[in-house]
Amino acid sequence: MITLYTAPGTCALASQIALEDAGAVYKTIAVDFKTGQQRSPEYLKINPKGRVPAMIVERGILTETPALLAYIAQTYPTAALAPLHDPFAFARVQEFNQYLCTNLHIAHAHRMRGHRWADDEATIEGMRRAVPRTVGECWETIENDLFVGPWAMGADYTICDPYLFTLAQWMEADGIDPARFPAIADHRKRMMERRSVRAALGLI
Amino acid sequence: MITLYTAPGTCALASQIALEDAGAVYKTIAVDFKTGQQRSPEYLKINPKGRVPAMIVERGILTETPALLAYIAQTYPTAALAPLHDPFAFARVQEFNQYLCTNLHIAHAHRMRGHRWADDEATIEGMRRAVPRTVGECWETIENDLFVGPWAMGADYTICDPYLFTLAQWMEADGIDPARFPAIADHRKRMMERRSVRAALGLI
Repeated sequence: MITLYTAPGTCALASQIALEDAGAVYKTIAVDFKTGQQRSPEYLKINPKGRVPAMIVERGILTETPALLAYIAQTYPTAALAPLHDPFAFARVQEFNQYLCTNLHIAHAHRMRGHRWADDEATIEGMRRAVPRTVGECWETIENDLFVGPWAMGADYTICDPYLFTLAQWMEADGIDPARFPAIADHRKRMMERRSVRAALGLI
Repeated sequence: MITLYTAPGTCALASQIALEDAGAVYKTIAVDFKTGQQRSPEYLKINPKGRVPAMIVERGILTETPALLAYIAQTYPTAALAPLHDPFAFARVQEFNQYLCTNLHIAHAHRMRGHRWADDEATIEGMRRAVPRTVGECWETIENDLFVGPWAMGADYTICDPYLFTLAQWMEADGIDPARFPAIADHRKRMMERRSVRAALGLI
């Protein structure tokens, strides 16, 4: 039994959707960010980095979304969530997820988690002001250069899709008009129709 | 023949060391950051993100260091640069590299690339001031929680080691005293003795 530590509105949703896609037997444990539970001594024993997701599997604890997604794809090969036997195609999948993680998620994090990169309120506020521009530029790169369609990597649904969908949920709060990015908006709509997404969101 | 686009002092070094470790036949092309060549129309055709590394292989172009490192490990399996047939151990490798990319490299980038996350000089300067603290915290996590030893992931040298070594080269410029992190300092020293590292650095 897999245990996924998660919190509403976080990127942990991507791994949960992938677990649903994989048909995995798992449970979730919600970490309460409102009370700072991610910084409690108990949770830091699970993930010293004080973040979600963390995933407990038979052999230990794993963290970092791109690593979890690749692990889920490799551990449930019959779900065909990644081109496991084609290193070039697998690298393209990883490259896409890496961009989401290191560019889009990071730009987004400057709105709410500025204290990670600054010590004074004026700098934190300065970062916050730039978020609509910086996050918007990431979405331009994704829409124009990285997204293939109909799924993120082309004809086949992969572990890129739940991750893309998860981060697209943050657009409105980041001050981005979803209408600017029609391919991503259409992807979100089609993702919302999938059983795995609806299950991970608690809608069914 | 693989072509690796690189620039001195960048994280592209990690992929070059891994190519040396793999015994790959490759050439490098230096992108001149001083003249902004990474933003030239010619280079943006290779990597629309305007960064290094980019790697041209037979089937196309790949970017993003963690993706390149996994690709190199998978494409040269006899070099044994990652536990390719053990999804859990492979996920641990990817988790480590993910931390370097999304936390350490990003914290570091706030010293020289603050314009990515801010629009005004005061905010950019505020980010720069925090770098010794934020990069130092990343190194504390690596030294205390993530680094196993003698190599990053334990007994076996993996694709984590060239990446760790590459980012450790930035310590001094980021205002970090290497003596604070003896395990990392020892790792740097042992990496410098490797033929692959010396070849990638142009020392032999």
